[in-house]
Amino acid sequence: MRERGVDLMIFSPQASAMAHHVADPAVALDWARACNDLVHRVVRLFPANFAAACQLPQVPGGPLDDAVAELRRCVEELGFVGCNLNPDPSGGHWTSPPLTDPYWFALFEELVALDVPAMVHVSASRNPSFHALGAHYLNADTSVFMQLVEGDLFARFPTLRLVIPHGGGAVPYHWGRYRGLAARLGRPPLGEHVMRNVWFDTAVYHQAGIDLLYRVVDAGNILFASELHGAVRGVDPETGHAWDDTLRYIDNLALPAEARAKTLETNALRVYPRLTPRR
Amino acid sequence: MRERGVDLMIFSPQASAMAHHVADPAVALDWARACNDLVHRVVRLFPANFAAACQLPQVPGGPLDDAVAELRRCVEELGFVGCNLNPDPSGGHWTSPPLTDPYWFALFEELVALDVPAMVHVSASRNPSFHALGAHYLNADTSVFMQLVEGDLFARFPTLRLVIPHGGGAVPYHWGRYRGLAARLGRPPLGEHVMRNVWFDTAVYHQAGIDLLYRVVDAGNILFASELHGAVRGVDPETGHAWDDTLRYIDNLALPAEARAKTLETNALRVYPRLTPRR
Repeated sequence: MRERGVDLMIFSPQASAMAHHVADPAVALDWARACNDLVHRVVRLFPANFAAACQLPQVPGGPLDDAVAELRRCVEELGFVGCNLNPDPSGGHWTSPPLTDPYWFALFEELVALDVPAMVHVSASRNPSFHALGAHYLNADTSVFMQLVEGDLFARFPTLRLVIPHGGGAVPYHWGRYRGLAARLGRPPLGEHVMRNVWFDTAVYHQAGIDLLYRVVDAGNILFASELHGAVRGVDPETGHAWDDTLRYIDNLALPAEARAKTLETNALRVYPRLTPRR
Repeated sequence: MRERGVDLMIFSPQASAMAHHVADPAVALDWARACNDLVHRVVRLFPANFAAACQLPQVPGGPLDDAVAELRRCVEELGFVGCNLNPDPSGGHWTSPPLTDPYWFALFEELVALDVPAMVHVSASRNPSFHALGAHYLNADTSVFMQLVEGDLFARFPTLRLVIPHGGGAVPYHWGRYRGLAARLGRPPLGEHVMRNVWFDTAVYHQAGIDLLYRVVDAGNILFASELHGAVRGVDPETGHAWDDTLRYIDNLALPAEARAKTLETNALRVYPRLTPRR
C-alpha cells in the first residue's frame, strides 16, 4: 500500500471468491460471515489503514433476506462502510433480473437506511465463454450501467450510491453511444439520470485509458483504485512500472488540485460517509 | 452513404434480426437464405455501391453443417465477400462454447478455404440483464477478444481473419489489462498472438473514444465503420453532428495519409480480398 501511495484501503473479501453460484443459502451465509469476520479482524489490527466492505450471502434467484441481515450486522455491529453487490450470483449465466427490478429493492432500502454504498462486482465465472478477469468483470460493469440507463432506479432511491469498478467497464470508451442511447430511449442526459448516483474507479491499467476516463467523466465521479495484487500483476515491459500502479497514470494527468483531491480522497468520503468518523 | 463519405458498403442482413435463438434448423436456414438473397438483389442493383456479407443459419448448440453450406453458396454462387458469425446464438445465455473450441472449426476451415473473413456479431438479446445495443453487443466483442487471448486459435488457422465490431468492445479502453493478462497467462504479446488476425472497426460514437482507439491500436488493424441507421441515431446536441458520423472523428485525428488510407480502404481490401475483383 505504501508503494502505491495508499494510506487507507477499503478492504473486502476477494470478489472472485464470493462463490455465490453455490446455491445453498446456509453455505452462502457461513462463507460470507467467515470472510467478513476475517476482514473485521484486519481492520481492528490496523484501524488506521483499513476500513471494511462486506460480502453478501447471495445465491442465484434466492431471497435477499440473509443479504440484508448480514449487511446490517456488518455495518451496525462491526463498523463496515460498504458492501459488494453481485448482479449475477449464477457466475456468468445471468439468471437474476436487472438491478432495476423490484427483486433487489429490499437491499437498496437497507443500503439507503444505513447510508452505505454498494460496489457492483461479480464473482468467478462458471461460463467458459467469459474469462473472469478479461470478460466477465467488464461485461458486468457495462451491463449494469446500461440497466441503469434503461431503468429509473434513482427516482425511487435518490440517495442510493453505486460504485462500478474497472473504470466503468466499456462505458467511458463508448460514452457517445450511451449518451445517444439515453436520448433514443427518451431518458434524461446521463449526468442527471445516472451519474448523480454512480461512481467509476481508476482500475484501468494504462495511461491512454485513464486519460479517456478523465476526458469524458467528471472527476467528481471517479474514485481512486489500485488492485495491488488483483487481476493484472507484474510490470509493463514498455514502461518498467507495474500495470496496476494507477497513481502514476493519475499523476501524469497533472489534474487541478481540486480534481485530484476528489479522486484521491473527498469523493470517497462522500460515497462512503461512514469513513469520516474513523479519521 | 454519400452524406457519410461512403462509396462502397459491405451490406449484410441486420445483425439484431438474425434470430438465431429460434432453435429450429429449418427456420434458421430459410431465414438466412431469404435475407441473403435479398441482400444479393441489392448488390446486383447497385454493384458499384454494395458488396455482400451473409447471415449464417445458426441455432443454439446445433451442428454447423448448414452454416458451412450457406457460406459456400453465398460466396461461390452469389459473390459474397464475408459473413457475420454469432458467438452466442442463444441470444444472451451464452450456451455455446468459446470460439476457440473445436465446435467451430469446420466453419473456420471453410472461411479459410474461401478466403473470406467473419465479423463476430451477436444478434438480439433475450436476456433482460443485457440491453442489446448497450450491453450484449459490447460484451460479445469483449468476451470473444479474451477467448482469443486465452486460446491459440490462430496457430491452427493462421490465415483466419475476424472483425470485432464496435471498436473492439471494452478492449482498447482496457488495453493495458489485456497486455497484462496475456503476460500473466503466458501468452505472446497481443500483436503477435491476436492482432495479426483481428481487426476492430470505428463504430465508436465520440471523439475521445476514436482518439483512444488510434492511440493504442495500430491503424493497420482498424476498419472504417459508420452505422448510418444503426444503434445510435440522431444528432449529438453538444456538437450538432450525428453521433455515428464517424468520418468526422477520423478527420479530426489528422492521421498521416498512409494510416488514413489503411482505415478507409486498404485494410478492407486485405481483410476482404474478394472485394478487389469487383473494383
